[in-house]
Amino acid sequence: MADSISVVQVGLGALGRLLAKHLVERPNIRVVGAVDTDPALVGRDLGEVAGLARKLGVEICDDVSVVCANGRVSVAVQTTTSDLAAVKPQIEALISYGMNIVSSCEELSYPRQTAPAASEEIDRLAREAGVSVLATGVNPGFLMDLLPIVLTAICAEVRKITVLRYQDARPRRLPFQRKIGAGLTLEEFAEKKAGGTLRHVGLTESMHMIAGRLGWSLDRTEDIIEPVVAQRHLSSDSLTVEPGRASGVYQRGIGYVNGEEKIRLEFRACLGEEDVQDTVIIDGEPPLTFTNPGGVNGDIATCAILTNAVRSVLAAPPGLRTMADIAPPSWFSG
Amino acid sequence: MADSISVVQVGLGALGRLLAKHLVERPNIRVVGAVDTDPALVGRDLGEVAGLARKLGVEICDDVSVVCANGRVSVAVQTTTSDLAAVKPQIEALISYGMNIVSSCEELSYPRQTAPAASEEIDRLAREAGVSVLATGVNPGFLMDLLPIVLTAICAEVRKITVLRYQDARPRRLPFQRKIGAGLTLEEFAEKKAGGTLRHVGLTESMHMIAGRLGWSLDRTEDIIEPVVAQRHLSSDSLTVEPGRASGVYQRGIGYVNGEEKIRLEFRACLGEEDVQDTVIIDGEPPLTFTNPGGVNGDIATCAILTNAVRSVLAAPPGLRTMADIAPPSWFSG
Repeated sequence: MADSISVVQVGLGALGRLLAKHLVERPNIRVVGAVDTDPALVGRDLGEVAGLARKLGVEICDDVSVVCANGRVSVAVQTTTSDLAAVKPQIEALISYGMNIVSSCEELSYPRQTAPAASEEIDRLAREAGVSVLATGVNPGFLMDLLPIVLTAICAEVRKITVLRYQDARPRRLPFQRKIGAGLTLEEFAEKKAGGTLRHVGLTESMHMIAGRLGWSLDRTEDIIEPVVAQRHLSSDSLTVEPGRASGVYQRGIGYVNGEEKIRLEFRACLGEEDVQDTVIIDGEPPLTFTNPGGVNGDIATCAILTNAVRSVLAAPPGLRTMADIAPPSWFSG
Repeated sequence: MADSISVVQVGLGALGRLLAKHLVERPNIRVVGAVDTDPALVGRDLGEVAGLARKLGVEICDDVSVVCANGRVSVAVQTTTSDLAAVKPQIEALISYGMNIVSSCEELSYPRQTAPAASEEIDRLAREAGVSVLATGVNPGFLMDLLPIVLTAICAEVRKITVLRYQDARPRRLPFQRKIGAGLTLEEFAEKKAGGTLRHVGLTESMHMIAGRLGWSLDRTEDIIEPVVAQRHLSSDSLTVEPGRASGVYQRGIGYVNGEEKIRLEFRACLGEEDVQDTVIIDGEPPLTFTNPGGVNGDIATCAILTNAVRSVLAAPPGLRTMADIAPPSWFSG
């Protein structure tokens, strides 16, 4: 691990700025470029935009071809959007510049079932270019897919997998609190849900990753979204929620095999959640219940896994990879 | 997963017999041969020896070359001994017959530091033959190495890793109860410990696997073995322990980096253990504590992971692999 890995960051929204701090603090990673199309960011120093105390000597540029063309970069870490259709041309451009890619795009985490044509095309381009592409995060990417998959390694039989991720959104960044609908009236919540903008993206991808790895053929999946209704006045640093309004979201992904519920992923994120936990329950032989009673802070964990995956995409075989088919990323030191 | 994998079992001691039941129950695995040198077993049917209700049409043979020579077998599952020196010629013979190998040999689970010459030679032979070799089990192989390694994927910083595996040995098979010293006087325990026969093999390998994957350079490891002393009369189906005798073993593996304790693996197995758990504690950012309060039955889990690894060695690149450098094994269905 003596040599450092040269990385370019693509996308400097809320997640990208948080991620910049993680990347520059790693002894083995060197951030050599940063890309964003926001005119308010272009030309500014990455350190300044990311809220670091110092300049990094990395100027934000709006042209990815310039940043990647210097031949020094081996991995692009892309944090732009959850939407695969929007991300696909960005990924293809990065592949064409010979970049290995770590992406936060939830819909790219396991797109074989949900977007087979895009999945195959990205895979083909990556193989031809000899690079590997991996989309990951804490969820999808870890808590609700890789972790239960890994735990089944010690099971002789698996009848059903349940994952509970119940989190208190108060310590999370404001875009996350907004994303889960905290503070909305129930009517607003219903409207946003109908418009497709209020949801945690990735439960379906996680279910397909589990099923794909375990050899289950899902005949259908459900993704049920409901508000958590505040019973009392709640507040975070960023917003307040009156009783009767939504304090967050309770979302359930359910996967069926031959009509039987085999996968249940419960994602509940709201201000003031009291039953905080990350728990994997395997109804199997032996039965397993692994629980982290304190829960996992998703902002830190997402930045951490994107950073840790930088090493993994360099070691992975070319193509569109998933968390389930590579040697698992881990933290690594200098 | 339509095609089944043809497997030969090598070694039909207590673990091998238990494993046979797991292998034959899997729809995707076909046991086509069985090898043991014990004259009491040779010529008998595997199903009968394994305590199955039916014959399998697989006759136990003492000549591995005969079983492997028919060209139908792609994976050998070897459960003979913990001792790498004793296992090495067996592994080399299996490689020469073109077998991919899943082994239960604890000392082979991560031998780069503890047996570098043997490790390199097996790796070279496996690469030349285009097969992969993997030694695994619940411990070493999973609970005290792969699982903590995987959990660090969501950590931005890791200061120390602690794993607690406290188990009640009463439901375990008799050889395990004997191995941990249950029923011995403290003098007998001390003698066996001095003779090297009373220990859980693998803590050192697990520490090296963690350190290797995380980029820590261990300057020293300790493997401390003490008896757990029975405070009351204890009994299992197989044996009884009077107060003042050993009810089992309390073993700690401790790994140091620059004199600082960075890894602590606590293995406690005794009759009547009350604080049963499997817990991984990561002192890091974020801090993580994943615990399975019921503990994991090691006999079932070991057979399960050896069975699940059959698919993994076929997919892994040639060479001597470890649990930390392949796509993680998982349970898989037909």
